[in-house]
Amino acid sequence: MAELMENQVFMAFTTYAAIVVLKMVLMGPLTAYFRITRGSFANEEDVSGKSEEQKKKLLRTHPDVERVRRCHLNDLENVVPFVLVGLLYALTGPELSTALLHFRIFTGCRIFHTIAYVSVLPQPSRGLSYIVGMLVIISMAYRVLSAVLLL
Amino acid sequence: MAELMENQVFMAFTTYAAIVVLKMVLMGPLTAYFRITRGSFANEEDVSGKSEEQKKKLLRTHPDVERVRRCHLNDLENVVPFVLVGLLYALTGPELSTALLHFRIFTGCRIFHTIAYVSVLPQPSRGLSYIVGMLVIISMAYRVLSAVLLL
Amino acid sequence: MAELMENQVFMAFTTYAAIVVLKMVLMGPLTAYFRITRGSFANEEDVSGKSEEQKKKLLRTHPDVERVRRCHLNDLENVVPFVLVGLLYALTGPELSTALLHFRIFTGCRIFHTIAYVSVLPQPSRGLSYIVGMLVIISMAYRVLSAVLLL
Repeated sequence: MAELMENQVFMAFTTYAAIVVLKMVLMGPLTAYFRITRGSFANEEDVSGKSEEQKKKLLRTHPDVERVRRCHLNDLENVVPFVLVGLLYALTGPELSTALLHFRIFTGCRIFHTIAYVSVLPQPSRGLSYIVGMLVIISMAYRVLSAVLLL
Repeated sequence: MAELMENQVFMAFTTYAAIVVLKMVLMGPLTAYFRITRGSFANEEDVSGKSEEQKKKLLRTHPDVERVRRCHLNDLENVVPFVLVGLLYALTGPELSTALLHFRIFTGCRIFHTIAYVSVLPQPSRGLSYIVGMLVIISMAYRVLSAVLLL
Repeated sequence: MAELMENQVFMAFTTYAAIVVLKMVLMGPLTAYFRITRGSFANEEDVSGKSEEQKKKLLRTHPDVERVRRCHLNDLENVVPFVLVGLLYALTGPELSTALLHFRIFTGCRIFHTIAYVSVLPQPSRGLSYIVGMLVIISMAYRVLSAVLLL
């Protein structure tokens, strides 16, 4: 087991995987922050102790909250596949420089994607960072399937 | 390979990871149960063979169904990061007792989170179980990044 | 590390995991295709440069887009658990034939599930492929928990 963590490609994968997953998990508190500042909740128990009128107001959706939630979902749709495919990719023993290139581009893209999404940067900034991130996943999956194919 | 499954920390991780993923997967049938008992479906093909009037009624959203779906999504946002970071964490070779503490607190939190969400327990029960679960993930990610950092 | 990728069960797992994750990731471009052809966008910056009236029209939800998004979410809820549990399952050293049976049934089910969902095949085609896929995950989780249990 110690062997695995002495392999440089695996160490690089571990580092970047931990960073992007951590970034994704922090979308939760960010959603909570927007819910509280925008006054937009999804559950009745979250607004207990308020008057009926206030409750109605607080249980409406708010565009800013929905935006963060879409950003979080997009992370799930991309960061999770990156970690899953990236783990298998790291195990196929690629060159360290090639692997680092994949991991760095993906991590950069996803951090920029979140900034572009949450602060409403004009397109195609968000679109491009999404597409490049996805191409990294596809490139790693291609390498995995061409190195190991047992159907 | 057999080596990995003889390591006690990895065995503990495997056990708790299987339990929480299984719990998450079972949110699917729970959603189906609420859809059927509450009469709230999302797809037209799910209500075929009914009169037009009935179809309209059955294709509305229902608060109980939406609640279970939010709970399921929250699981995806937390259980998946736990398993991904937990795998890397287990590979860094932590103390068994420390690792078990992480895995047990997280698993307990997520089971309680589901109960609190679905049976509408008053806050902060749901909020606390969510936050503590997230802190476990962050603690494991911190350990991973301080043990293995190759940028 | 090279050892792991010489194990036949692990190679089979790697192959099918890469295929289903790739299929899931491609739901993103499919959603984009439906958004563009149906004229249904979620973000204001995606429709910049249009007249106010057109913007309003383009920012509405469209049933076809929502359908693909539900299909994508269902993939997240099932494909990700398959890869997570499947990885642990492969590490418990099952028979190659048994493992292949699990991986092949799941992969077939999920590909059929997407076809059934997106092209609106009559039920129970979609429901069955969902249930059988889930049973594969449960069967693997059962094997994992009975081979490795350290609570």
